[in-house]
Amino acid sequence: MERRIEDVQYCERLFQSFYDIGSTSQGGVTRLGYSETEDTMHEVFKGLGRELGASVITDEVGNTYVTNTDEDGYTLIGSHLDSVIEGGRYDGVAGVMAGLMVMRWAKEDGIRIPLRVGAFRCEESSNFGCCTIGSGLITHEVYKQDIGHLMSKDGESLESIFEHRGLTLHPKKISGLRRYLELHIEQGKVLEECKTQVGIVGTIAGPVRYRVYLRGMAEHSGATPMDMRSDALCAAAEIILEMEKIGKWESAYESVATVGVVQNHPNVLNVIPGRVELGVDMRGIDQDSLDRMERAFKAAVRESCKKRGVEYVAEKINSIPPISMSESVEDGLEQAAKRLGISSRRMPSGAGHDAMSFAEICDSGMVFIPCRGGVSHNPSEHAEITSICDGARVMYEYLKGETAK
Amino acid sequence: MERRIEDVQYCERLFQSFYDIGSTSQGGVTRLGYSETEDTMHEVFKGLGRELGASVITDEVGNTYVTNTDEDGYTLIGSHLDSVIEGGRYDGVAGVMAGLMVMRWAKEDGIRIPLRVGAFRCEESSNFGCCTIGSGLITHEVYKQDIGHLMSKDGESLESIFEHRGLTLHPKKISGLRRYLELHIEQGKVLEECKTQVGIVGTIAGPVRYRVYLRGMAEHSGATPMDMRSDALCAAAEIILEMEKIGKWESAYESVATVGVVQNHPNVLNVIPGRVELGVDMRGIDQDSLDRMERAFKAAVRESCKKRGVEYVAEKINSIPPISMSESVEDGLEQAAKRLGISSRRMPSGAGHDAMSFAEICDSGMVFIPCRGGVSHNPSEHAEITSICDGARVMYEYLKGETAK
Repeated sequence: MERRIEDVQYCERLFQSFYDIGSTSQGGVTRLGYSETEDTMHEVFKGLGRELGASVITDEVGNTYVTNTDEDGYTLIGSHLDSVIEGGRYDGVAGVMAGLMVMRWAKEDGIRIPLRVGAFRCEESSNFGCCTIGSGLITHEVYKQDIGHLMSKDGESLESIFEHRGLTLHPKKISGLRRYLELHIEQGKVLEECKTQVGIVGTIAGPVRYRVYLRGMAEHSGATPMDMRSDALCAAAEIILEMEKIGKWESAYESVATVGVVQNHPNVLNVIPGRVELGVDMRGIDQDSLDRMERAFKAAVRESCKKRGVEYVAEKINSIPPISMSESVEDGLEQAAKRLGISSRRMPSGAGHDAMSFAEICDSGMVFIPCRGGVSHNPSEHAEITSICDGARVMYEYLKGETAK
Repeated sequence: MERRIEDVQYCERLFQSFYDIGSTSQGGVTRLGYSETEDTMHEVFKGLGRELGASVITDEVGNTYVTNTDEDGYTLIGSHLDSVIEGGRYDGVAGVMAGLMVMRWAKEDGIRIPLRVGAFRCEESSNFGCCTIGSGLITHEVYKQDIGHLMSKDGESLESIFEHRGLTLHPKKISGLRRYLELHIEQGKVLEECKTQVGIVGTIAGPVRYRVYLRGMAEHSGATPMDMRSDALCAAAEIILEMEKIGKWESAYESVATVGVVQNHPNVLNVIPGRVELGVDMRGIDQDSLDRMERAFKAAVRESCKKRGVEYVAEKINSIPPISMSESVEDGLEQAAKRLGISSRRMPSGAGHDAMSFAEICDSGMVFIPCRGGVSHNPSEHAEITSICDGARVMYEYLKGETAK
């Protein structure tokens, strides 16, 4: 497919509009969900929407929409503008940019495609240990139980943050949308290694997450013999390595297991660790594999703690089953790519996305684009601007086809 | 030995004078070295000294002395007033209280014992990862290399803290002292289990300490297959468990090994840990055992990192050889206990103490008293006031004997 220079330039300009917001000394960005930095991202997004002559809407949980219609039956193209701590500039943002590009093409071409571009709050779990909060709340799909008690990294509850911002944890369900589309960087290496331009997502892996609280005995590290200890960090270390082993066992089913969080107390050189908190993340596209991992995780915690005289609590934070995209949307996106001469492949998503929230309430689909080395959630995350243009073009081509029907 | 009620009351009053300073919600105290909280402890100590009609001296590194003489040839009885984070109220403080008790008895009895009671700064390694800073600097024994670059928990360098306080990292060496005595809680369970009233310390275990910096690759925890990871926390977990194994191998020589510190980055649920920092503490009274542990530690780090493609730096923070007390002082303290009818036993010290700094420059000795369950560096640390009285009385009895010679 030939690309127009003005499309690449527009896309580059969108990217630069967000570039500096939340920049860190490590070269990446930190734009936590429901932070002032994320607010700034949304303000910039609103400005870019108004530039296209679109209206701006904010919903009851702080999500922002740029829209060219006030009628029902619109297509929602969305993603998120928050990031992990010391994350990259493409994760989420690329999808919002793609939405704006589609809206601009439709306007230029004078084709009536009822469209909203959405930026959903707090997709990353970095601030509250819980993902897709903005999209999960408005679809009523993900958060059936109350999440107001979740604490931010700064120690404020989600409930209190919502109260200060005049938002509600129990919004009315989003309505009127015909379908949901999302472009996202792959966050893996498959497209790059297969030299494929876009991925069409089939199933999104379901994350199962736990916090584990371990309590041993904080004693003097010099005066407590090895056989009289109850070292919470040694129990934690065993659990960390067991989780790695469990992930490896289940990797044949494309499952993964990770301990990403460890808080050690009192965390000084001369005291045996008395308390440790772990954050555990298991993901898979195969429910049986996920269930086996969860059982093996619980057994690992139980056995390690029993052996060492360490008390524990394992608290489930969230659990989302693997979620499939709409086959008709998958087919449509694949045919659109073919028409444009853009190479594509069907693939699963190991990472979670806002699309999970929408898959149950409307036809949904996702387009992946390559990112360098598969690196994401890292300052060195990188995707080509031309890849964003290609992915957006596939979505536009698909929507044009649907509109013509 | 019969105890006088007024001695127990005085000792209890000393204890209460310090009680509230640095109290935490956990029920313990946090009195970090070179903090304002430690300053408050020293101010209270000065007041208690003046009550005894003694003079107060502060040296070039901020140590405080209460003295009944300005002549050379004095006995220095000392310990420290700082604590670990969420520590107990007896570790260090009991030794300073014992010094005040000895000074009070000498005054009451009209016996001329030239005496200084010392409170040494920052004995715990909790603030700078480095122990016995106050006593080490003024004896020129411990810190032959510069330690000004060490950073406090709050991120300020020791050099900058000293500058703000008008102190110097290169003080003149303490002089004029005849001998050094220190009472300390055992921080182990031996005295309690053997129902022995005091311990006479033979050798103090030498700590060898490292910081290990691990660098893997921070990537998306959902989209990075298990076999493509370089997880710094998994390498750390292996090192933690290897250190435990190494300590157990060497426990026949009364050695111990502990990983007390772990800092994980970025420490969020959806990112594979990219950087981890560990604090490692090895101690023993047998130099060969210490050397074997250090070699095994280095091999463990090297092998775990090599296997996982994790880069590392292992930085030695400090290394103090095992240090023996003076045999003549040990004998003298033992005979004094016998004369008083107080049960005693010779024993090593697994924990480091300010006495390590003085052992090379003058005759030195230590008296241990039991602490409940051997628990220390913990809010539930507890010693009996009567035990402090007994230990102090042994030191006083010994000094009376030496003065009479």
